[in-house]
Order: sequence, then structure tokens, then C-alpha cells
Amino acid sequence: MPKSNKSLVLPVPPLFIILSGPSGVGKDAILTRLKAEKNSLQFVTTMTTRPRRPAEIDGVDYRFVTKAHFEKLMAKNELLESANVYGNWYGVPKQAVRDALDKGKDVIVKVDVQGAATIKKIAPEAVFIFLMPPSLEELGNRLRLRYTEKPPELAVRLQAAQDEMKQVSRFDYVVMNNSGGINEAASRIKAIITAEKCRVVPRRIILP
Amino acid sequence: MPKSNKSLVLPVPPLFIILSGPSGVGKDAILTRLKAEKNSLQFVTTMTTRPRRPAEIDGVDYRFVTKAHFEKLMAKNELLESANVYGNWYGVPKQAVRDALDKGKDVIVKVDVQGAATIKKIAPEAVFIFLMPPSLEELGNRLRLRYTEKPPELAVRLQAAQDEMKQVSRFDYVVMNNSGGINEAASRIKAIITAEKCRVVPRRIILP
Repeated sequence: MPKSNKSLVLPVPPLFIILSGPSGVGKDAILTRLKAEKNSLQFVTTMTTRPRRPAEIDGVDYRFVTKAHFEKLMAKNELLESANVYGNWYGVPKQAVRDALDKGKDVIVKVDVQGAATIKKIAPEAVFIFLMPPSLEELGNRLRLRYTEKPPELAVRLQAAQDEMKQVSRFDYVVMNNSGGINEAASRIKAIITAEKCRVVPRRIILP
Repeated sequence: MPKSNKSLVLPVPPLFIILSGPSGVGKDAILTRLKAEKNSLQFVTTMTTRPRRPAEIDGVDYRFVTKAHFEKLMAKNELLESANVYGNWYGVPKQAVRDALDKGKDVIVKVDVQGAATIKKIAPEAVFIFLMPPSLEELGNRLRLRYTEKPPELAVRLQAAQDEMKQVSRFDYVVMNNSGGINEAASRIKAIITAEKCRVVPRRIILP
């Protein structure tokens, strides 16, 4: 008979959470909300070569880097995923994710649907969450309100969103981001994290 | 191009949640907590032929029935699972679960580990949650505090608990019920329910 006072609490490996969804669905708003709360999440910021928008902060919204710098990291295979979207490069720095996971911290990254597909191949044990707009009409309204897209680019993004929505089956979870429902969407994401930590068969992330 | 104002909200089929774990771990306390809260859960009470304990209420803690009645239901295959534990019959009435699921309600049942194994064969798409004590010592303390077990029966239950704990790998989730942590355990169960409702591939329960 084993020692009866032995703790039955099992160590839970850290999670690697991929938050994705079409452009304009509200990924940034969700991340901002999660960042404002007390939780154990480590946010790894995506690098991009796209120009910074006036309201954006380097290192918070994105890490804005030059094309030369980005390509150097790509050549060294130091990006977890990289994709050219609308002419700009986006990528998740691998080392930052590895460092956080090594410290036992749960990592969350925001990537477009194309990026999520790439990460899925490298780290299939990550938790893939697709943020879904209530409707395409609503998504169009949000993109228009953002003032950053000119009408032709807007049409491209809406068409892309339709294509991206077809990729939802590759994800583990789909979270609706209803109008005014940032709190609800954020709390669903937190519930997913809690539930994932209770899995009998934990996900084990091994990054190459 | 499809109608852009079409809602992208997908209907989520109801969940069938199986709460299990060793005797004395706190399944009843958790259910009592969940029942006291406003939520969409439908509680299906287990039938038993075991004598009612002084503090128990028929239809709340168990549906207390005669052996003859129980055996009649068994013969008609109207029990989702039935097991003889410590000389008494326990079983989940099938029709009550079916009725609730048909109405689109999430159903939760409390069963012993043997019962969970039986339900797993019939309804593998149910959500199986194992409630885990912090240690066997703590479980022993709780059983002793319950005053309902005489020392020899207590030893049998503790030995059974050790065997049952080895069955945890057949479950989807393990929730620790730490000392004084009913709130935490209940909120983890609610998180699991929320997360399960966000699954891209929903579980579809078909009861025979």
C-alpha cells in the first residue's frame, strides 16, 4: 500500500494557446482584456514588417521590425510561423515562446488563420481557438469602423474572412465574439484554459 | 457569395456530464453547490436500493426504491448503468436522461467509478469528470467524518478508492477537490462545461 498522505495533485504542463480568426473579429480587444486581468498568461507578441498604425505601440500590439531583420530570423529558422499577408510579413518569434514554456508559463499568441495552420503542423498539441464574428455583415461593420482599410482592401479582407471561416474545422475551439461581448468571449477563453488544465491526458508541447 | 448577415452562431447539442470519483471525495457536495446556482444543468438522480441515511432526501440525494422495483427496471433495460456496490444496487434511470437531452438540456449524473465505466461503453461521447481527493489520507478523514461507515467498511472503501484512482485514465477530465475547495472544484466543472460547448467538433449523445 503506497503512503496514503502522498499528494494526488499532478503537475500540469504549460499550455500553448493560439488565438486566431479573421481580420477585424476582435483578437486584439480580447488580448487587451486578458492582459488587463490577473492571470498566469504570457503574451508573446507577433513580429511584423507592416507599418505601425497611429494607435499601436511597439512591443504591445506587434513588434515592428524591418524586412531585413525579419528575413534574417526567417533564415535562422527562428520564427514559429511566418506568413505574408496583404504584402506584409507576420511571424511569431520562436525563442520567446520556448522561454515562457520552459518557465512553466502558459503562452498565448495571436495569429491569422494561415499562421495557425502553420503552427498546427509544428505544435499540434497547442490549443487552437478560432474567434468567430456573429456574422459577416458585423465583421464588415467592424472593419469599416477601424478606418484603417480602404474600400478595395476591405473587400479583400471580407472575402478572405469567408475563406478563413472554412478553416474552423482545424481548430479545437470556436469562440463567438458577439457585439459587445468581449467579456463573454474572454471568459470563454479562460474557461477553455481551465478545462484544458483538467484534462486527464495533458497536451505536451515540444517546439523544434 | 452567401448572405452576409447570416448568423454564424452554431447550435450546440446538449452535454451529458458524468461526475464520478471515489466514495467520500465530495461528489454530493459539488452537486449541491451546482444545484444552488443559476445554471442550465439538469440533475438526474441515481436510483438506489441502499437504505436512506438520516440526512438524505428521496429524489434529491437518491431515488430510494425497493429491490423489486429496481430489478423490474433492469429487466426492461431502463437503466443506463446499474451496479451492485457494497451489496446495494445503484443505477441511472435512462428515460430521465433521454427526456432532458431531448429538450436540449445539459444533463449531469453522479455515478461511482464502476458506473462511469458502464456509461462510457454506451455513451462514449459523454463528458467524463473524475473528482480526485487531495490524498488518500484526506479521503480517509472525510469518510470517518461522515460517521456512516464502520471501520471495516471504511477499509474496504479506502482500498476501493485506490483501485478506482487507477481508472482515471478512462476519464476526460480530473478535477481536484482540495480541502475546503468546493467552490474551486465547482467552478472548474463549470469551466469544463463552457469549454465543451466551444468545441469545434461537438459531442453528440445518442442513447440506445
